[in-house]
Amino acid sequence: MHGNNLEQRPIYLRTFTLRGLNDLDEIKKGIEKNMIIIIRITPLAHKDVEELKNAVETLHKSVTMMGGDIARLGEERIILTPSAVKIWQGA
Amino acid sequence: MHGNNLEQRPIYLRTFTLRGLNDLDEIKKGIEKNMIIIIRITPLAHKDVEELKNAVETLHKSVTMMGGDIARLGEERIILTPSAVKIWQGA
Repeated sequence: MHGNNLEQRPIYLRTFTLRGLNDLDEIKKGIEKNMIIIIRITPLAHKDVEELKNAVETLHKSVTMMGGDIARLGEERIILTPSAVKIWQGA
Repeated sequence: MHGNNLEQRPIYLRTFTLRGLNDLDEIKKGIEKNMIIIIRITPLAHKDVEELKNAVETLHKSVTMMGGDIARLGEERIILTPSAVKIWQGA
């Protein structure tokens, strides 16, 4: 009755808010668990743009190392995907 | 070298903007293709709240029928997931 995907372990989608570099560890754990992660970055953007830049660079490296993808989602968020999830380009 | 997920067909993540009921067909096709869908709903919300309510109800039915999940993402967006993707509660 169910699709093939149900026979697999599910992929989890989790949201985070980035307020400082302290939040990175928890997010990186999510990346390593192959989660889809949506991060609201505005709290850190309003506090320290340089720190935000470093944080996004760190996350970009972690995601790329896992074969995943990263993209902007509007003004307030970024989205990270594991290698099993591809971000549709041109939408 | 790669994780197990890469041997599967990838799941696509696609973004949409909901401006009217005309946009529903394309979104429903995405649901049927087991895509992860993020929809910016504010354009329709600003135009016709009743129509937005109907649209979200329609999408809710489509997603539920496919065994998927639906959630609010901030003030501007909703997110729809196929059955293979579970939205992490309590984050």
